[in-house]
Amino acid sequence: MFKLNRGDAAPLSEQIAAGLETMIQRGELSAGARLPSVRQLASQLNVSAFTVTGGYDRLVARNVIAARPGAGYYVVASSWAGPETEEQALITPPNDPIGFALHCLDGTGASLRCGSGFLPEAWLADIVPAALVTRVAKSRNALLAPSPAQGSPGLRQQLSERLRSVGIATVPGQIITTLGATHALDLVLRALLRPGDTVLVEDPGYVFYAVRARALDLVVEPVARLPDGPDLDALEERLERCHAKVFVTQTLLHNPTGGSTSPAKCHRLLALAERHNLVIIEDDVYGDIAAKGAMRLAQLDELRQVYYISSYSKVLSPALRVGFVALPRSAVDQVLEQKILGVLGTPGLTEAVVEATLDSGLYQRLALKVRTKLALFRQGASRLLRESGVQVAAAEADGLFLWGRIPGAGDADTLVRSALQAGIFLAKGQMFSPSGRFEDYFRFNVAHSSDPRLGIFLSRVTAQGVAGSNVRQLRPASSGA
Amino acid sequence: MFKLNRGDAAPLSEQIAAGLETMIQRGELSAGARLPSVRQLASQLNVSAFTVTGGYDRLVARNVIAARPGAGYYVVASSWAGPETEEQALITPPNDPIGFALHCLDGTGASLRCGSGFLPEAWLADIVPAALVTRVAKSRNALLAPSPAQGSPGLRQQLSERLRSVGIATVPGQIITTLGATHALDLVLRALLRPGDTVLVEDPGYVFYAVRARALDLVVEPVARLPDGPDLDALEERLERCHAKVFVTQTLLHNPTGGSTSPAKCHRLLALAERHNLVIIEDDVYGDIAAKGAMRLAQLDELRQVYYISSYSKVLSPALRVGFVALPRSAVDQVLEQKILGVLGTPGLTEAVVEATLDSGLYQRLALKVRTKLALFRQGASRLLRESGVQVAAAEADGLFLWGRIPGAGDADTLVRSALQAGIFLAKGQMFSPSGRFEDYFRFNVAHSSDPRLGIFLSRVTAQGVAGSNVRQLRPASSGA
Repeated sequence: MFKLNRGDAAPLSEQIAAGLETMIQRGELSAGARLPSVRQLASQLNVSAFTVTGGYDRLVARNVIAARPGAGYYVVASSWAGPETEEQALITPPNDPIGFALHCLDGTGASLRCGSGFLPEAWLADIVPAALVTRVAKSRNALLAPSPAQGSPGLRQQLSERLRSVGIATVPGQIITTLGATHALDLVLRALLRPGDTVLVEDPGYVFYAVRARALDLVVEPVARLPDGPDLDALEERLERCHAKVFVTQTLLHNPTGGSTSPAKCHRLLALAERHNLVIIEDDVYGDIAAKGAMRLAQLDELRQVYYISSYSKVLSPALRVGFVALPRSAVDQVLEQKILGVLGTPGLTEAVVEATLDSGLYQRLALKVRTKLALFRQGASRLLRESGVQVAAAEADGLFLWGRIPGAGDADTLVRSALQAGIFLAKGQMFSPSGRFEDYFRFNVAHSSDPRLGIFLSRVTAQGVAGSNVRQLRPASSGA
Repeated sequence: MFKLNRGDAAPLSEQIAAGLETMIQRGELSAGARLPSVRQLASQLNVSAFTVTGGYDRLVARNVIAARPGAGYYVVASSWAGPETEEQALITPPNDPIGFALHCLDGTGASLRCGSGFLPEAWLADIVPAALVTRVAKSRNALLAPSPAQGSPGLRQQLSERLRSVGIATVPGQIITTLGATHALDLVLRALLRPGDTVLVEDPGYVFYAVRARALDLVVEPVARLPDGPDLDALEERLERCHAKVFVTQTLLHNPTGGSTSPAKCHRLLALAERHNLVIIEDDVYGDIAAKGAMRLAQLDELRQVYYISSYSKVLSPALRVGFVALPRSAVDQVLEQKILGVLGTPGLTEAVVEATLDSGLYQRLALKVRTKLALFRQGASRLLRESGVQVAAAEADGLFLWGRIPGAGDADTLVRSALQAGIFLAKGQMFSPSGRFEDYFRFNVAHSSDPRLGIFLSRVTAQGVAGSNVRQLRPASSGA
């Protein structure tokens, strides 16, 4: 970008400010362009983060750049050079996992949420009646007492009964509640692995497996995900080549492909895990909307090699953030220690709400309703995507997502950006790939992907190449559309 | 303990089982004794965690040891060799930070909770009326929509107004909600530091500062805490000797000593931090029960070097687990990224409850009531401790805790254990010391320390040396009382 002169009288932070300002004046950084993160630029220029911050602060003071909470620093356009407001926060496109999470959670910015990982709120409405929450709130215990570190005993009792009902033998002492499945994954990885250890992740697979693992300085090795489950030959080859300790997999309604692992493959996978002393983290967040009698690894294994994680963020409500891990007894201590060190405990109130909802039988009814509705919406979304020229995955896929290839998508980041300008939040496939493949794939949430506006947008792309391919972004100059 | 023979035909896990069984038969590990953690023993014997688990599993199968959720493996006594129940979980004494957290959170085991870090539930009752929770639950948004990754905008708005009202200039975009102050600390440490970096921690100070930092492979350097704040000469000496990047401190109502940092010291501390590019994490969880007009570092610094963390677990309710960090704008991205990677988001429901409570003015009234009540109970507890021969700290201390030396306490672990047998949960001082000092100090929660049974127990200790000093524990044999 530019060089610093350590012999110069001007402080390094001023040199950074001046360097950036020149680039902006020259148009090398155009209005709306995101600046490198403080840490990135600090390491690039070999200065401290404080020096970079100092430089950025000077430009903020001059109104040349602006900070956006959760989204870094941007070059200020004259049209929006006013004081920053919360509403501007989501200008960042969902082109990296963090931006993607912001779009999934923040619920603003795009009117068509095809890229979201959640169900529409209208599908969930009334499932947790206010009366139930009132009843819970009237119990002093749920509202005022700290929840035990391992999680509310009543909820853990409910969970272990529900697990037993799908054939997973477990006791409450083997369950640790978490703030959702992502939190459960984080705790297990931290308890079992040390920096430099290898973890195997499906390719494609849920965004945050690989991202979380890499942020813990773990080595991520991809294992191809086929329509009927992970590629076991590839897995075996990996296990023989490198000493992998953990494999993360979604047996049912795999995110993003929608496939489920066949029972025979479950059996072979477990045999392989036993032979190689491989821990399997089975993420079953979509299990409650899977077909009745669907097979999970934890059923066969009885929580010996398998750590079973799930959550109520998908079907019940993403506002509660209640998840859990059911794990081998011998591992409870280590994982619980990580929970205590990270968050001390989880909220008793939300756990009591989930417990009461499970207890009332309301949840089971909702899950069934969601399953039926999803099947219907899946047909509609599938038709719309096909008619728009998107190549969608195999017919046996099911659940929340459709995984499709957009021929002529061109640069995915550009497409995501122009979709956002059209009010459409798209999830690009590459994010789901630990090896960085699937450049022209996208994940569609079937509950959000039946709107004709999506069809119109996609048809234009597949017919003419990238809509708005003249839109350039970040570094190189040009106007931006 | 024992040696493994790698040339032996018996598998290593069987050798571990046999070795432990011999120690138990010889009485070197007596009934009730805790076995080393899987990780500990694995590193001691230089084998994998799986091998140790295999050995432990063999002993569990033989009913020689039992696993207790959250508390490791124990030698089984013939009297409790039956199937494990949840009720047995708390047999583990609060002698290490994890055991201490379990006792603080689980709310069972001891009838006198002198060691707890929380207020009695009765003090908090009715502060969050069920009607308020009902109102919150009736808003679809709080119950069904995911909360933005940075935290509920309404709550962040409230928080920034409250911060401004105590003189800390801030905007909602500078605030990230967390699952309590411990979570906030974890996120900031992970965002700012890399393994091997040095963090300065007060000695004594809150248990989980040093424990959390060490678990992240950070180097912890203690800085003595004096009655009027941290020892700045020691701090300066440390800063000149090692390149420390972060200092964690509690300005107001310091845990465990109850002291507050004087305004002059705040000023000097900040000047030092600026000179050395030192980030200060200011933990203000007790700020809302401090005297009106009390000075915080964040007021002077305006969130440039200072990261300000606090929570509503202390005064409002530990069942909600709502905390936050207010931080420099330039650091929001990095810390938010850690939040997303670890837990994705925090629960919208509990954040909406806190927002409504702050909005209603109920919280401010409760904080005042708690403050008045604490002052009263402080006198009572202080008198009781003095009369029992405990040397309690300076009169200018205030807030939730009394920090006292028990002359003749002897081995603190033994004392804690015998107190627990008498139904009293004590918090030993050594846990609060990153340098492992303060062996005969204890932290007393004034709200829980006016009961005559505590006086009787302590008087016996100070008069005769450790009550039940014949109680031996862990490694060495003998019966256990």
